[in-house]
Amino acid sequence: MASRRLRVLGIDPGLTRCGVGVVDVAPDRSAQLVHVGVVRSDATAAIETRLAAIARGIRSVLEEHRPDVLAVERVFAQQNRHSVMGTAQASGVALLLAAEHGIPASTHTPTEVKAAITGYGSADKRQVQTMVARVLRLDELPKPADAADALALALCHAWRGGAPQASATGALTPAQRAWADAERLARR
Amino acid sequence: MASRRLRVLGIDPGLTRCGVGVVDVAPDRSAQLVHVGVVRSDATAAIETRLAAIARGIRSVLEEHRPDVLAVERVFAQQNRHSVMGTAQASGVALLLAAEHGIPASTHTPTEVKAAITGYGSADKRQVQTMVARVLRLDELPKPADAADALALALCHAWRGGAPQASATGALTPAQRAWADAERLARR
Repeated sequence: MASRRLRVLGIDPGLTRCGVGVVDVAPDRSAQLVHVGVVRSDATAAIETRLAAIARGIRSVLEEHRPDVLAVERVFAQQNRHSVMGTAQASGVALLLAAEHGIPASTHTPTEVKAAITGYGSADKRQVQTMVARVLRLDELPKPADAADALALALCHAWRGGAPQASATGALTPAQRAWADAERLARR
Repeated sequence: MASRRLRVLGIDPGLTRCGVGVVDVAPDRSAQLVHVGVVRSDATAAIETRLAAIARGIRSVLEEHRPDVLAVERVFAQQNRHSVMGTAQASGVALLLAAEHGIPASTHTPTEVKAAITGYGSADKRQVQTMVARVLRLDELPKPADAADALALALCHAWRGGAPQASATGALTPAQRAWADAERLARR
């Protein structure tokens, strides 16, 4: 299906709340909200049960909305030490599901997301949320913050052209190829 | 199948090399090697492709050897910063696969593993490997180190009785229940 838009699933990974947002982005960079939500897991459950709940939620979005690409926040060890391992594990699950659904994945840092959305890498959360709502023509700011962050990630991915995954071989990553293909189609 | 032995799959998580080891442990704590190996992924591939390769490797061990429980090394943010996020992501994948195969999972710290295997939490790698080889009556030390670490994790889990997963509710974790059940059967 040679569609002229790129459908991106953004994931703000987390164990307690995992933000998921799907947007359609046209070659002129205009964007439309397709889906937004939060996948939760029971904080008292065993870690494997929690990851399975996150996987189920992401899978259902993948199957219902069939995105072209998945974008996940890149997690750093320097971040909040208490929850960072759970966040990394949830991001691993999201990336695995992308591969298993045959779609490319891409990771973006919070600074990259802020810069892509607001033009300013040190923007605060509220600025990012305001821009996301404006771009998607939403009446209200998306809530909770994890959902808004997932939409911001998805928009960031589309607007950056899936470029950040520098491959060790210098070749295009799957995400870069997907975007390049979408752009080529759009120019026809 | 009311078997009198506990079959444990130990996983030393990693993206480049993920150690997998399966042991059967009897109620008298004697142990037998069932399988040992390393799942690798191409360091130049995209992260989602790498995690999918790790998942395929772990899945094939789960399906071939049908362990009762999966034990993974617990990853800390303080560890080697360069690779810790990939390690955490691989551990998330391993834990997810446990849940999806309907078996309990358990995590153990390196110190817990060393203490369980050698009686000494600051033991060096060589001591641990020597003990693993002795316990499993192997002619050689298991290689590479990731494979030996996976066997050590599996033995640690069985010998510690799957006890370390303190649940927030105070109830037994699935791993604790599995072990308690195995012990009860053994006493009959």
